[in-house]
Amino acid sequence: MAPRFSVTYWLDASDEKEARARALDVSVEQTVEIPRHIVPHGYVEEEILGRLESLVPGHDSRRGFLAEISYSEDDVGGDFLQLLNIVFGNSSIKTGTRVESITLSDGLRTLCPGPRFGAEGLRTRTGITSGPLVMSAIKPVGLSTARLADLAHRFALGGMHLIKDDHGLVDQPTSPYSERVAACVAAVAEANAKTGLHCAYVPNITGPASQIVERAYMAKEAGAGAVMLAPSLVGFDISRSLAADADFGLPIISHPTFAGANVITPTTGFSHRFFFGTLQRLMGVDAVVFPNFGGRFGFSREECLSILEGCTEDLGGPKPIFPAPGGGMTFARIPEMQSAYGDHVIYLVGGALLREDDLVAASQKLRAAIADVTAKSG
Amino acid sequence: MAPRFSVTYWLDASDEKEARARALDVSVEQTVEIPRHIVPHGYVEEEILGRLESLVPGHDSRRGFLAEISYSEDDVGGDFLQLLNIVFGNSSIKTGTRVESITLSDGLRTLCPGPRFGAEGLRTRTGITSGPLVMSAIKPVGLSTARLADLAHRFALGGMHLIKDDHGLVDQPTSPYSERVAACVAAVAEANAKTGLHCAYVPNITGPASQIVERAYMAKEAGAGAVMLAPSLVGFDISRSLAADADFGLPIISHPTFAGANVITPTTGFSHRFFFGTLQRLMGVDAVVFPNFGGRFGFSREECLSILEGCTEDLGGPKPIFPAPGGGMTFARIPEMQSAYGDHVIYLVGGALLREDDLVAASQKLRAAIADVTAKSG
Repeated sequence: MAPRFSVTYWLDASDEKEARARALDVSVEQTVEIPRHIVPHGYVEEEILGRLESLVPGHDSRRGFLAEISYSEDDVGGDFLQLLNIVFGNSSIKTGTRVESITLSDGLRTLCPGPRFGAEGLRTRTGITSGPLVMSAIKPVGLSTARLADLAHRFALGGMHLIKDDHGLVDQPTSPYSERVAACVAAVAEANAKTGLHCAYVPNITGPASQIVERAYMAKEAGAGAVMLAPSLVGFDISRSLAADADFGLPIISHPTFAGANVITPTTGFSHRFFFGTLQRLMGVDAVVFPNFGGRFGFSREECLSILEGCTEDLGGPKPIFPAPGGGMTFARIPEMQSAYGDHVIYLVGGALLREDDLVAASQKLRAAIADVTAKSG
Repeated sequence: MAPRFSVTYWLDASDEKEARARALDVSVEQTVEIPRHIVPHGYVEEEILGRLESLVPGHDSRRGFLAEISYSEDDVGGDFLQLLNIVFGNSSIKTGTRVESITLSDGLRTLCPGPRFGAEGLRTRTGITSGPLVMSAIKPVGLSTARLADLAHRFALGGMHLIKDDHGLVDQPTSPYSERVAACVAAVAEANAKTGLHCAYVPNITGPASQIVERAYMAKEAGAGAVMLAPSLVGFDISRSLAADADFGLPIISHPTFAGANVITPTTGFSHRFFFGTLQRLMGVDAVVFPNFGGRFGFSREECLSILEGCTEDLGGPKPIFPAPGGGMTFARIPEMQSAYGDHVIYLVGGALLREDDLVAASQKLRAAIADVTAKSG
């Protein structure tokens, strides 16, 4: 028998009998997908069919039940997308069914060794050994390459540690990808020469299927410090594949665009902790952008803290990564955010800086305020 | 000024003032993503910023409002994933926001010419010029290639028009991809030689990012009749790219695994019609699998009919495609399904046949029953 891993689902059910029936349905749906009584005896029934390992009442306001179902590594067949298919393929289409967490097996740790850099690797590359990192974004779409590069330059002069493309910047005629990458890398390098810092420019490689990997390599060759992609658009295997590629060797930042439906209701999709934490690490992502609590999106403080947990908890192999909450950062909120995330965070600050006339001064002031709060709490 | 296309969103709002504020937020969030008062004047403000074109009260049980927002082709930049990013990127993370429909521009029709074959092309290839098509699936994962090929052979002898892989079949050691494709193509060809039919075998090309296109070509070279993929796993640009590739030239069938969260609540994600209809055609898909009403998933008859509409309505370019409802098909339900879908449908029947001892006879009987009901209603 092959080793097994397990997935814990939250299931809507009013009593244990109903919960058990629903859990057994999931164990069939996610594996053999034929009525249980015709599952072939022997290998398929004993190995491939999902197995209900435990069923306990839920412990939060949703009530319901938590069902742990184990699956065979044989069903995965060394294919990351098939792993996701088993975790939540067809059952994603059922109401009252949510993926809460996964317990890895050694085989999955081999398939998903995790990020190449992780949080510590990003610290090393940016030279920021303690305290929060700060990332900004160049935008909006429609600006020329010269204007975007100028923004990158000023953010870097202001001491930002990472400067990413807006996720809407691809290869528009106003700022073609290769032109933008070259200009922004140069603009940030020029600022780094003045500041002595190691700010990294992070282009968005989301694009046509046939060009994503090519753009990743263009970024590397041009001297970018990391790349950003949107897994819900480009697919969930690109980052794993890039992270596994020693020739590529740049950190990867994940963007949540188009992913909202996966977490937005508490009784469907995935837990925040799994989707923006565990899954990102399995995908080989080094930092994950998500909407901060108290900003213009609806994530709660508790949900954001669960993402921090998913980014950092021991998975027995895949490195911890940085949560990168975006939106809602103001000077007044720094103490509140520091108390929530501590030092293990990349603050993504975009609009709050872009509205200032003096971008360099505003960036410096923000960094100083974060350092100040961090020092006081330390 | 570049031509504009528009997206209609359902927005949760209790009055028009709130709805207008939410709609204006969407128009910013989906384009410039910076506070409105700092949007650069001129090109960015006049061209790139989303524009609220109309706002009317909702007309179904959700109440709320329908907001039509137009976007510039310049923002898309000829990139299909950036189109999806504009349609529903960050706004996917907001509650009470759902994509209802899209109105194409000529530039989008150039970017998304649609399926290479469409429903009529699939009829031509399978030789079934009228009435519903019937598709079955070989499964479960864990069977050997020989046993899967035997299932394909018997389904083909029974007159199925299409035989697809289960969506969990990838490249597991029990049935490696290339071995399975070769064996199933041969098994179906042998049956076709006996029946005189043109049954098509449809392997699942979902797999590692670097191998998907390779597997598509392997399928073609081995003589498969079409390919299947899961857009929510492999990403949303693969099918568009394969459909645009004249050298490839096989029909593409889309599977809904992992996609559930996109449609499962009526106030988030996408309308069924858009996600399983319009979007699939823009992606170049020729037939789309989704859960039938009355089966083990929760889609309503009305939602399934809206998918049929999305698959067939005039988009001014992209061909109509086949809806392929799966699950819930029994002999008793054929009249009900015929009255819902009419002739423009591929019935996906898996478990209901696999539970029969004589697969050939059961398949023949099912086809005959469908033909009978179709003739009576015609």
